[in-house]
Amino acid sequence: MEIAHPYLLFLGDVPDALAAKTAIGIVDWRREWCLGQIRLDGCAADTGLPDTTIAEGAKAGAKTFVIGAVNAGGRLPDHWIASVVEALDAGLDVASGLHVRLGSIDAIREAAERNGRKLHDVRHSNQTFATGKGTKRAGKRILTVGTDCSVGKKYTALAMDRAMNQRGYSSSFCATGQTGVFISGRGLSLDAVVADFIAGAAEWLSPETDENHWQIIEGQGSLYHPSFAGVTLGLLHGSQPDAFIVCHEPSRTKMRGVETPLPSIRQVIDLTIQCGKLTNPNIQCIGVAVNTTSLDEDEAWAYLAKIGEEFGLPATDPVRFGMDVMVDKIAAEYGAP
Amino acid sequence: MEIAHPYLLFLGDVPDALAAKTAIGIVDWRREWCLGQIRLDGCAADTGLPDTTIAEGAKAGAKTFVIGAVNAGGRLPDHWIASVVEALDAGLDVASGLHVRLGSIDAIREAAERNGRKLHDVRHSNQTFATGKGTKRAGKRILTVGTDCSVGKKYTALAMDRAMNQRGYSSSFCATGQTGVFISGRGLSLDAVVADFIAGAAEWLSPETDENHWQIIEGQGSLYHPSFAGVTLGLLHGSQPDAFIVCHEPSRTKMRGVETPLPSIRQVIDLTIQCGKLTNPNIQCIGVAVNTTSLDEDEAWAYLAKIGEEFGLPATDPVRFGMDVMVDKIAAEYGAP
Repeated sequence: MEIAHPYLLFLGDVPDALAAKTAIGIVDWRREWCLGQIRLDGCAADTGLPDTTIAEGAKAGAKTFVIGAVNAGGRLPDHWIASVVEALDAGLDVASGLHVRLGSIDAIREAAERNGRKLHDVRHSNQTFATGKGTKRAGKRILTVGTDCSVGKKYTALAMDRAMNQRGYSSSFCATGQTGVFISGRGLSLDAVVADFIAGAAEWLSPETDENHWQIIEGQGSLYHPSFAGVTLGLLHGSQPDAFIVCHEPSRTKMRGVETPLPSIRQVIDLTIQCGKLTNPNIQCIGVAVNTTSLDEDEAWAYLAKIGEEFGLPATDPVRFGMDVMVDKIAAEYGAP
Repeated sequence: MEIAHPYLLFLGDVPDALAAKTAIGIVDWRREWCLGQIRLDGCAADTGLPDTTIAEGAKAGAKTFVIGAVNAGGRLPDHWIASVVEALDAGLDVASGLHVRLGSIDAIREAAERNGRKLHDVRHSNQTFATGKGTKRAGKRILTVGTDCSVGKKYTALAMDRAMNQRGYSSSFCATGQTGVFISGRGLSLDAVVADFIAGAAEWLSPETDENHWQIIEGQGSLYHPSFAGVTLGLLHGSQPDAFIVCHEPSRTKMRGVETPLPSIRQVIDLTIQCGKLTNPNIQCIGVAVNTTSLDEDEAWAYLAKIGEEFGLPATDPVRFGMDVMVDKIAAEYGAP
């Protein structure tokens, strides 16, 4: 799936910023791809982009109308359909991370056909994959893993990609979830793939590359999450990382959406190495990325120092303190760019 | 998915017994559900059932026409379509484990609609599942796991179910693959579920039950198989087994379809316990089931004795030597029926 940019970001009339987190994530990382936001009356979210209309956006060269908001249930509300049709009639493709397929709505399918435009359903995959093979591919790979879902695996991968680029490494971000796909303009929502092909899809997402190129792969779920660990393990095997970063949020006690207690960072490091060795015997942990929003700055530094000492690894908050210590670790372990 | 029996088993004109292994598996375990086999000219497979016609089978009370053979590529050959339509016109449902959906073939879809009959595509799932929750359910569960794919996990689970029943335990077989679904008349091809819902589907397949009832769950793949381990882990978490049996084929050196070396039985036991503890802290291994077809009888006994001693667990070949030693272990660990 390749999504053409520049984007127009559609926020609908969602009641809060959380419902527009896809659009906000896109602006955080790809501000330069975004021409403006389209909001309906009553919209309470704001990405900070200039408000525009579909007609103005099309005139300015927008290529894709991105539905960057979700309403409860992942449905497309009826009163959003007119905007989607207007975008198609204005010559834009449309991309959505909703559960409903765009093409299942008659007015949208017909408008896409009428205008010869593409509908990208990022949460769905019609693609056929081979099953995973487990053979070593050329190139270097970093995977972000976590003690839970939603602990910053995407953010950490994007921050690592940016930091490595700034330090002169050849690197690229590999998206495995819907917001990541919008941010990179390609990729795949791995949790939407048929179970037999998880590892195969992960291999397809991080293909053979130059020996000195680094693919920074967005992790999913957690090996210790009772809902999603299968996706996590297939992604670990398929992406065959040389190095991984553990992402952690210290205020959590239970895993997201379930009653299962959070695993320790040590447990995650050990099980990731144990399982990851299957497809990359040299797998190693290169650091811990902590979401320290629940801590004040002194507490955050103290926490990171404690983690760093405990594991003998760099520990940082990618948002607050940047990723330089992780790139230093890459330089120490694998050499300069 | 509930598939009505008695069955008529359709073998088409496949060139060998391997291509009819689904039908042969059904006859092995549910001979009493099968009224006869339907073979086209040139068919080289034989289940041992009486040859019959669709008209005779329908008259004798057959409820479902089961496509129990595959041709290369999992397609339905054009010259099989007439038989499927004839079965629908004779008032039977049709069930298939092919990759192609029956309803995607116009003549078949129309015949099903015309006769108000059901089309069961066992390899596909239109069902919606919740994500896995990981909470403990009432009842007892045994899962078969393996050092590889295709090492006897289904056979071992069915043999264990039969042996426990014969010894007075309340037990039932939970199918997670296509042949298993035909054999049990219900279940789900777990590898066809969308990745996000593997554990949730496994929870659905082995629901809460009486505290003294045993669900014997057909395993899939292997935690050490680089193509399918994600399915295996989701099934392990979702089925939350109290006990598991490791299935092994001693002549293999590489895992099926890939270059990865076979793991040891010890590795499989350890990783299964380590991961399985997440949803059942009391998980334990109760034995090793070995496919000894590559060994003569003396060698087989010697091999099983060695394995039994090494792990302090019962070891048997379910086909050659039965499952009594495993049921003894259940009685010792969990009490009499």
